[in-house]
Amino acid sequence: MKYLEAYQWLLDYSKTTAYYESALGLLHWDQRTCLPAAGGAHRSEQIAAMTSLLYRRTTDPHFAEILGEAEAGASAGDDLSDEAVNLRGWRRSFDRSTRIPEGLAVALAKAGSQGQLAWQAARKANDWKGFLVFLKNIVALKREQAQALHGGEGEIYDALIDDFDQGETAEKIEGLFTKLEAATLRWLEKIESAPHKPDPDLLRGPCPATAQSAFIREVIGGLGFDFEAGRLDFSAHPFTSSIGPGDVRITTRFDSDSFIKGLFSSIHEAGHALYAHGLPQNHWGTPRGEPISMAIHESQSRLWENMVGKSTGFWDHFYPVACKHFPWLKKTGKEQFLLAVNEIRPSPIRTEADEVTYNLHIIMRFKLERMLIGAQLEPDELPQAWNEAMEGYFHIRPRNDSEGVMQDVHWSSGAFGYFPGYALGNLYAAQFYAKAQKELGDPRQMFAAGEFSPLLQWLRENVHSQGSRFLPRDLVRRATGGELEVDCFIDYIEKKNDWLAGANAP
Amino acid sequence: MKYLEAYQWLLDYSKTTAYYESALGLLHWDQRTCLPAAGGAHRSEQIAAMTSLLYRRTTDPHFAEILGEAEAGASAGDDLSDEAVNLRGWRRSFDRSTRIPEGLAVALAKAGSQGQLAWQAARKANDWKGFLVFLKNIVALKREQAQALHGGEGEIYDALIDDFDQGETAEKIEGLFTKLEAATLRWLEKIESAPHKPDPDLLRGPCPATAQSAFIREVIGGLGFDFEAGRLDFSAHPFTSSIGPGDVRITTRFDSDSFIKGLFSSIHEAGHALYAHGLPQNHWGTPRGEPISMAIHESQSRLWENMVGKSTGFWDHFYPVACKHFPWLKKTGKEQFLLAVNEIRPSPIRTEADEVTYNLHIIMRFKLERMLIGAQLEPDELPQAWNEAMEGYFHIRPRNDSEGVMQDVHWSSGAFGYFPGYALGNLYAAQFYAKAQKELGDPRQMFAAGEFSPLLQWLRENVHSQGSRFLPRDLVRRATGGELEVDCFIDYIEKKNDWLAGANAP
Repeated sequence: MKYLEAYQWLLDYSKTTAYYESALGLLHWDQRTCLPAAGGAHRSEQIAAMTSLLYRRTTDPHFAEILGEAEAGASAGDDLSDEAVNLRGWRRSFDRSTRIPEGLAVALAKAGSQGQLAWQAARKANDWKGFLVFLKNIVALKREQAQALHGGEGEIYDALIDDFDQGETAEKIEGLFTKLEAATLRWLEKIESAPHKPDPDLLRGPCPATAQSAFIREVIGGLGFDFEAGRLDFSAHPFTSSIGPGDVRITTRFDSDSFIKGLFSSIHEAGHALYAHGLPQNHWGTPRGEPISMAIHESQSRLWENMVGKSTGFWDHFYPVACKHFPWLKKTGKEQFLLAVNEIRPSPIRTEADEVTYNLHIIMRFKLERMLIGAQLEPDELPQAWNEAMEGYFHIRPRNDSEGVMQDVHWSSGAFGYFPGYALGNLYAAQFYAKAQKELGDPRQMFAAGEFSPLLQWLRENVHSQGSRFLPRDLVRRATGGELEVDCFIDYIEKKNDWLAGANAP
Repeated sequence: MKYLEAYQWLLDYSKTTAYYESALGLLHWDQRTCLPAAGGAHRSEQIAAMTSLLYRRTTDPHFAEILGEAEAGASAGDDLSDEAVNLRGWRRSFDRSTRIPEGLAVALAKAGSQGQLAWQAARKANDWKGFLVFLKNIVALKREQAQALHGGEGEIYDALIDDFDQGETAEKIEGLFTKLEAATLRWLEKIESAPHKPDPDLLRGPCPATAQSAFIREVIGGLGFDFEAGRLDFSAHPFTSSIGPGDVRITTRFDSDSFIKGLFSSIHEAGHALYAHGLPQNHWGTPRGEPISMAIHESQSRLWENMVGKSTGFWDHFYPVACKHFPWLKKTGKEQFLLAVNEIRPSPIRTEADEVTYNLHIIMRFKLERMLIGAQLEPDELPQAWNEAMEGYFHIRPRNDSEGVMQDVHWSSGAFGYFPGYALGNLYAAQFYAKAQKELGDPRQMFAAGEFSPLLQWLRENVHSQGSRFLPRDLVRRATGGELEVDCFIDYIEKKNDWLAGANAP
């Protein structure tokens, strides 16, 4: 087959696979938003059937043959051309898939879906022992998968990280995390000894779901979320689902006495959605059009959630809007509200953590899962190791395992290697945001005027539209001129801490 | 391959196909309830990809080979065994599918999905010309499909009817419809000359969507709809979607000044859902577990909507419930309400038609689409033909094409041959209902006490649980002892007309 013909064949094949994947994506979205209780068993079977179809397509020898022909015929030269990016992406996906025997792939899929259901029940009942059976099975399978995927150098955990964050290794991440951990612990010490704290009751008041929904729609619409090309729904655990071009869906949840969690989780998911909407749509269904990594995805959600959503300019604009939807908020005053929103206060729960302590939640999970996959720690030792880490960082002992080691869904579904991306995302976000500010000027006035599109445009151009063209560390170098590092994030937090300390001063 | 092995292979194959089909079903459901406007193009591509996958599975020569082995090895004898029913179903499906080239199958799926979107927009804008482009394309493709499917005898339109109502032909249907048309026109003449009419304003009053939704949930829950295994959502055009066991979804719509349309359309869809829930779940994914035809499906929806939902006993029970949700209804009084609900009054809109004139709407569509597929009528001549038919039957001229020829979604999606089943459904319903009454006794007292489960059980046993075991005309013979005919329906209407005339008498 001639090169052009082979490449065209691969494009078609890739897009068809992507349509099946996005149908599977809708099955997952629906499972978490709409599915009637009695439909669960059928949905598992549907998902298994679609997963198995996708596995067979990704490992199809005929696909590999044509891929080989295209690779052989491709002209050497531009490594960053769409074609080069796609050929690399297809090769990576084929090689990784074929290293895992079909039996293991099916066992992993089953264990992940059973594990999630077991986790839901066990977390509700605070039943660690009940969950442990499933976790042991998953950890064993993940070790086997890591072994199969692993190239031979370094630790096998790297192979799982690489699934979500291509090119990263535990050792490289450790270098960043050691510095981040030290800085965070320094801040924590300072904050704990500070005499004044904002009153968290300032953020509490009656918050009917309809008002929250209306406020959230106004906020994320203002940031640039396009409701003609997306949806906002309700689910117990908020998430973003990118079904395809023109169809990116986020979910949120509501507390009846505070709109804060629902709002920030919505801005977070909207950040993911803005990235998905900004990916090059003409490359949809091929590697070139895909998000490059979990960490870059997270950099977008956390940039909007924290750097934008907790800034003074943002609330210059949105505080009056919030007061329109929640009239009791007027008596709080914008200054006090802003301090309360930015409060740094250790929590046992990752998803409720502020932007400073959040990274410690990630670092401890990174350390624990690294030992788990490396067999330096066994699943039954996990609760003790977890609680010790919590005490060491936060002087908090979880009240029970549901609030401790069982709080996150990730491990129950087999997503080991996923956590580090959250903290890497914070680092990327700080670097992107600093560079954008340098180019666009002080964002406070822009945000205060409700102008978020210059920032969005900057991200569209420098991050979103690049898709998978560059590996994450190359992307940040190209966009900001600097290497991925911790200092920029430290600088961002130091400035915020100074401001908080000044405003909190008696 | 031994018979048993071949049969087991076919069972597995059939179920996997069914999982893909039900994923496609969710894509369709979502398109009509959730899909963001900008996601339409992507959804068409997803649907096309899944349709093409299903086409390849249904026409796979390897499948045909194993099917042939199973057929050869099957022991002659019981024609109604599960195995015999399944082998027949697989054979029918393979033979029909292989007659349609893949290109045509994909083109049909695409045209149907694009056609539906175009119809939505065109109906809103009353833009017949805009819609005509899509309709012409669909009609051309459907003629091609009918030609390919057609066995050689009779008209090619039969092949499309057979898709929805196995064994029926235009000629057989014409025989029934001629009699039904004559009886209906006779009734209409009588009714038009009757001096007293119920006041339709009795059914109007403030109907907030939340109250309507609560009332509908109470009604269909009372009839037996299981909300743990289903959903009620909103859509512009109500429909039922059977995703799989434990997951059957209906939709409804609300008028702000009347709950009547929303209620009866919900009971109608709930009737479909009760049938779907009553199909033999252990045979799901094989022909034996499928609904046998569109007409039988419609017999269930129209039985609950009209024969039950417009009966005296039903309102003995539900009138007080309605008054709870809509307090203004109290002053109407149950008797007057019942007369208004049962009023026979020609309307330009099929879905708003009473149970007498409804059949004329179907008969005119049957005549028009028969001519369209047979090329005795071209799409651009449709509005005129439509309006003439409306005048002939009802002395009504639609105010515009949105209220006329563009009122239904069916043709836009390529569903030609579907309409006759609605009226056949009325005939089947009358025969099932008459027989059920004979066995269960006068339903008025049961319904008045809120007891609908004896009727549901009768239908479960005699209709639902039979799945595709019997062809529709065999099913009605077995369940009622009689052939499909018009008299039973005529008898039902005559009785109701006598009652209405008596109650309406001055």
